[in-house]
Amino acid sequence: MNSKEQFAFEKVFLELPEQLKQIPNLGEVASYIPELSHVNPEKFGIHLITADKQNFAYGDSNEKFSIQSIAKVLSLTLAFKLEEEKLWERIGVEPSGNAFNSLFRLEQEKGIPRNPFINAGALLICDVLVSRLNQPKEEFLDFVRELVGNPKINYCERIALSEKEHGYRNASMVNFMKSYNNINNDVEEVLDFYFHLCSLEMSCAELAQAVTYLSSDGMNLLTQKEVISPSKTKRINAIMQLCGFYDEAGEFAFEVGLPGKSGVGGGIIAIHPLKYTVAVWSPKLNEKGNSYRGMKILEFFTTQTASSVF
Amino acid sequence: MNSKEQFAFEKVFLELPEQLKQIPNLGEVASYIPELSHVNPEKFGIHLITADKQNFAYGDSNEKFSIQSIAKVLSLTLAFKLEEEKLWERIGVEPSGNAFNSLFRLEQEKGIPRNPFINAGALLICDVLVSRLNQPKEEFLDFVRELVGNPKINYCERIALSEKEHGYRNASMVNFMKSYNNINNDVEEVLDFYFHLCSLEMSCAELAQAVTYLSSDGMNLLTQKEVISPSKTKRINAIMQLCGFYDEAGEFAFEVGLPGKSGVGGGIIAIHPLKYTVAVWSPKLNEKGNSYRGMKILEFFTTQTASSVF
Amino acid sequence: MNSKEQFAFEKVFLELPEQLKQIPNLGEVASYIPELSHVNPEKFGIHLITADKQNFAYGDSNEKFSIQSIAKVLSLTLAFKLEEEKLWERIGVEPSGNAFNSLFRLEQEKGIPRNPFINAGALLICDVLVSRLNQPKEEFLDFVRELVGNPKINYCERIALSEKEHGYRNASMVNFMKSYNNINNDVEEVLDFYFHLCSLEMSCAELAQAVTYLSSDGMNLLTQKEVISPSKTKRINAIMQLCGFYDEAGEFAFEVGLPGKSGVGGGIIAIHPLKYTVAVWSPKLNEKGNSYRGMKILEFFTTQTASSVF
Amino acid sequence: MNSKEQFAFEKVFLELPEQLKQIPNLGEVASYIPELSHVNPEKFGIHLITADKQNFAYGDSNEKFSIQSIAKVLSLTLAFKLEEEKLWERIGVEPSGNAFNSLFRLEQEKGIPRNPFINAGALLICDVLVSRLNQPKEEFLDFVRELVGNPKINYCERIALSEKEHGYRNASMVNFMKSYNNINNDVEEVLDFYFHLCSLEMSCAELAQAVTYLSSDGMNLLTQKEVISPSKTKRINAIMQLCGFYDEAGEFAFEVGLPGKSGVGGGIIAIHPLKYTVAVWSPKLNEKGNSYRGMKILEFFTTQTASSVF
Repeated sequence: MNSKEQFAFEKVFLELPEQLKQIPNLGEVASYIPELSHVNPEKFGIHLITADKQNFAYGDSNEKFSIQSIAKVLSLTLAFKLEEEKLWERIGVEPSGNAFNSLFRLEQEKGIPRNPFINAGALLICDVLVSRLNQPKEEFLDFVRELVGNPKINYCERIALSEKEHGYRNASMVNFMKSYNNINNDVEEVLDFYFHLCSLEMSCAELAQAVTYLSSDGMNLLTQKEVISPSKTKRINAIMQLCGFYDEAGEFAFEVGLPGKSGVGGGIIAIHPLKYTVAVWSPKLNEKGNSYRGMKILEFFTTQTASSVF
Repeated sequence: MNSKEQFAFEKVFLELPEQLKQIPNLGEVASYIPELSHVNPEKFGIHLITADKQNFAYGDSNEKFSIQSIAKVLSLTLAFKLEEEKLWERIGVEPSGNAFNSLFRLEQEKGIPRNPFINAGALLICDVLVSRLNQPKEEFLDFVRELVGNPKINYCERIALSEKEHGYRNASMVNFMKSYNNINNDVEEVLDFYFHLCSLEMSCAELAQAVTYLSSDGMNLLTQKEVISPSKTKRINAIMQLCGFYDEAGEFAFEVGLPGKSGVGGGIIAIHPLKYTVAVWSPKLNEKGNSYRGMKILEFFTTQTASSVF
Repeated sequence: MNSKEQFAFEKVFLELPEQLKQIPNLGEVASYIPELSHVNPEKFGIHLITADKQNFAYGDSNEKFSIQSIAKVLSLTLAFKLEEEKLWERIGVEPSGNAFNSLFRLEQEKGIPRNPFINAGALLICDVLVSRLNQPKEEFLDFVRELVGNPKINYCERIALSEKEHGYRNASMVNFMKSYNNINNDVEEVLDFYFHLCSLEMSCAELAQAVTYLSSDGMNLLTQKEVISPSKTKRINAIMQLCGFYDEAGEFAFEVGLPGKSGVGGGIIAIHPLKYTVAVWSPKLNEKGNSYRGMKILEFFTTQTASSVF
Repeated sequence: MNSKEQFAFEKVFLELPEQLKQIPNLGEVASYIPELSHVNPEKFGIHLITADKQNFAYGDSNEKFSIQSIAKVLSLTLAFKLEEEKLWERIGVEPSGNAFNSLFRLEQEKGIPRNPFINAGALLICDVLVSRLNQPKEEFLDFVRELVGNPKINYCERIALSEKEHGYRNASMVNFMKSYNNINNDVEEVLDFYFHLCSLEMSCAELAQAVTYLSSDGMNLLTQKEVISPSKTKRINAIMQLCGFYDEAGEFAFEVGLPGKSGVGGGIIAIHPLKYTVAVWSPKLNEKGNSYRGMKILEFFTTQTASSVF
C-alpha cells in the first residue's frame, strides 16, 4: 500500500464514527431461529487487513458473532482445494436470480445447484467434505483455526441445534438433490455438518484474518502458507462477486464494487484482491437478508477510498 | 502500464497465433436471422487499448462485423447519463439467471426487467432514449461516432430489417412491459430503435476505442472528454460483470475475470478498469450464445497477463 | 325431464329471490377497461333451458351484457368444426394451473397454449378462424346469430376499441406465439378479431339458447340442426369442465359440478349434458375473476336439484 | 340399468378381446423402483360393477397388482370423512398443471398442495390421517378391507421398503411442507404411512368393489352402509375429474369423459356417477405415467356405451 492509500484509509477510519451516526440503524435482526434474535441490534464492528498486514479497526470488532453463511466461503475453499475441477461437475458458478432457499431452479436444473453460496450449493459442498474428510466437523474446524491462528474458534452447539430444529427447508433440499443422485452421503450427516458450519462464531478481526488468502493470491498472511492456488483464489473471488449476496449481488457490486459474502448474523466480508480484506458486523438486516449498515458502511468506504474493483 | 506489464502484453500477442491454432473453432454461427449466418466463420480479430493509449492488435481486427448486443453497453451509458438515478426505478441491476429472451422473470417482477442487458432491459433503455432524444436513431449514432472518432460508423439497414421481420419475441416483450405501464412510447418506435441499435457495425479496433471511457474513469481516450462520471463508470462495469453474458456471466467471471459484454455476432468486449479495453471477434458461438474462441482467447490472455480484476 | 325433476326446478326458481337476498353481493365489477366498470352492480339475471325446451327465468335475464370470455366457447366450437382433429396439434386440452393471462407456461411449452380458454389459447383459436373464414368477424357473427335465432346480436364497438387500447398483454401473447410460428396470420388482424369476439353482447336468455347444442348432443334446440357432432360436443364440455374457470376450475367443479364458462362481464354459462343449459349474470367478480353471486346461485341450484354431473 | 344399457355393456365386453388385439401394447412398465419392473407387461384385466350390482369382467381381473396412487382416492375419502371441511384449509382442489412430483408450485403457494392427488397433496392427507388415527397403517387397512369385504387385503412390505429406499423426492416434499408448518407429525412417520399406502395390492375386481360408494351417492354396494355423504361423494368425483391423471387430466376427460384415478402400477379406476365403477389394469405406461392400454380401453368403452358424464 502506498502512502497515499494509507492516508486515505486512515482518514476514512477516522471519519467512520461520524458517518455511522448518519446512517439510521434500519432493518430487522434475523429471527428465523430464536438464538439469533437475542443479539444486541446496536452492535457495530469493522476490521480491515491490508495485503501488507496493516490493521484498521473500529467498534465491536473483537466481539464474536454468528458468521452464518460467511462460513460457506471457507467450506468452498476447502472443497475446491480437495476436489479440484471435478467439483464443477456437480455444481455451477452462475447467479441464481432467486432467493437463497428457493427450490424452483434446483428443480429446473435437475438437482445441480446454481452456485456454492445458495443453500442447496452450500449443502452440496458439505456433502463433498463429508466424503473427503474422516471427521468432517473436527477437520474443518482445524482448517478454520489455522486460517485464523486461534485454536479456540468453535461452533456454537446451541445455534447448531436450533438450526436443526428449524431446518426442514434445508432437509428438503438435501433430499431433493439426493433424489437426483447429487448427494453421496447420509442426509442427516450432511445436514449435521451444515448446521455446525453455519454456527461458527468469530469476530470481525478473526474473519478478516481468516480470508486474507483471498487478497493475497491464496497465501494466508499470518502463516505465509498457501491455502489454495492463485488461480483458484481468483475463481472464489469471482463466485463471491456474482453470487455472494443472494438476490442482491448486483446491488452490492453496483454500490460497493467488491467480491464479498454476507451472513444472516449481520456479518459481511469483502475482498479487494491484492489489496485488503475487510469484515463488518451490524446485526440488522435489510429485506434481502443482508446487513443494512454493513452494506452502507462498505459503500462509504469504497467510495471514499476509490477502491472498488470496477 | 509499467514495463513489466508491457512486456507481458507484447509476449501474449506474439503467442496469440500459435495459441489460436490450438483452439478448435467450435460452436455455430448465429442463424436466427439469415443475414448473420452469411459471415465467414473463420474470421478472428482482437484489438486492445491500454489506459496509456498503447494499441495491440491481431487478425481481422479492422474488419467490421455486427456488434449486436454489445451496443447495449453504449445505449445504457447514454441513458444513464441522461436519466441519472431515476433510471433504476424502472429497471434492476441483478443477474436474471435466465436466458436472454425469457419472459418468466419479467412476469414475476411485474414488468420490471432484471437488468439493462437482457433483451427486455435493453428494450426499456431504448424507451428511455426515445423519450429523451428528439431523433433517437440519429442522435445515438452521433454519440457512438464521437466515441469512436469515426463519422462513418453506421447501422446496417439490411440487418435491422431482418431483425424486425423476426422480431416477434421482442415485440412480445415490449407489449408485455407496456401492459405494466413500464414503456412510455409507441411500441413500434421503441422496436425500430432497438433493431437499429443491434445492427451497428464496427471493427474490433473501433469497439475497443468506443469503450475506452470504461477503463479510464469515464473519459474517452481519444477526445479526452468525460463521457460519464467515474462513479457511473464503475457501476456500468459492475453491471457488465454480473449480467454481461446472459446465463454465462458466472462462467466468464470465473474463467476470464473481467467485466464484459458479448453479442451474437461473435464479438466480445472486456474491460480491465484503469488498465485496458479489449475487443475480440470470432463468429462461432457456444451453446449459451457467446463467442467460443472469443472467450477462450480472453481466458488465455488474462491468465497469461495475470490481469483479472479478482 | 320427468315430473319429479320438473317440480324440483320450479321449486328452486320460486325460492331464488329469497335465496338471493341471503347472498351478499360481494366482489368487484371488472375495471381493467373503463367501459366494463359502468354496469349497475346490482343486476342479476338467470335463464335455463331444458333439453325438452322448457324455459325458466328470473331477474334481468333479458338484459344484454358483455359476455366477454364466454364467447370463447362459441369460437372454439366453430374452429373445432372447421379444423377437426388437426386443431389439437397447435393447442392443448389441459388446465393451466395459472392465471388467465400468464406467459409462464406458454414459454415452458414453446408457444403451445395449454387450452382454448386461457387468453393465449383463445387468441390461437382466433388465428384459426382468421385462416378459415373469408370475413372472420362477419361470418362468426352470422354463426352466433343463427345459434340464438336473433339477427340483431352484435359486437359492441366501444368495448372492442377499449379492449384494443388496453390490449398490450394480449398483443404480447400473440407476438410470443408468432415467435414460435404458432400464429399464421397478421398479429393485428388476429387481435382485432379477438377484441371483437370478447365484445359480444347478449342476454342470459340468448346465451342459454346459444349453447343449447352443448346439452343436446350437438343439436341446436331452436333450429333442430346439428351444430357439431355428439363426440365433439362431449369434448367441448370436457374442456369447459377442466379449464372453464381459469384458476378456479376445481372450485367450480367442486361446488357446482357442471361444465361451464365464465366471463369478466359477470356472466356464467353451465351445461348439464342431455339435461339443460343455464346462463346467469351478476357483475361483481370474486378475486379469481368469476361472478361471485353467479357461482353461489349455481351452487344453490345444483345442490337443490341434485343435478351435478358427479 | 335399463335393458338397453345392459345390452350395450354386454356387447362391449364381448367385443373387448378383439378390440384389445388391435391396440398395440405400447409404453414402458414403471421402473423407478425395481420391484414394480418385475411385472408381466402383457397382463390385462378389467372389472366393472353397476350401481345395481351387476358385474362384468375380462382377463386378469382377479390378479392382484400394486395399486399405487389409486390408493390416494381411499385415503382422501377417509381424511375428508374425519376432517370435514377443515381439510380444505390445508390443501386445494385445483389442477396443478405440473408433473406429479414437482415442487415448483408448492413453493409458489407456500406449502399448500394444489390438490390431494399430486404427491405433495397425498402426503399431506397422510399427515391428516396420522393425526386422526391411533394406528394409522392398521386402521386405514381396516377401512379398505371393509370397503372390499376382504380381510386379506394387505400392504406389500417389499414394495413399501423399496419406495422408502428411493423416496428422497417424497422426503423432500414432506420436509418442504413442514418448513411451512403444513405438516403436523414426524416426517418419518408420515412417509412410512405414505409408502405403505402406495404398496397396497388389489385386483381389478377388488378395486371396482372398493370404490362402489363413488357411483352410489356414498354407499358401499356390498355392505349397504354409507361410507361418506352424497355431497362429499360428488366432491371426490369432481377432484378426480380435474386432478386424477397428473398432467393428463384434460386428455382423460377429453377421451374418456369420466372421473378417474391412475397409478403407476398400470391400474386405473373410473366412475360413472350413479351408474358404475370400473377398474382396469395393464402395466405399460404412456409417457405421462398412465396405463397406455388402460386409457385406450376405457375410451373404447365409454364411446361404445355413450356413457361419459359429458
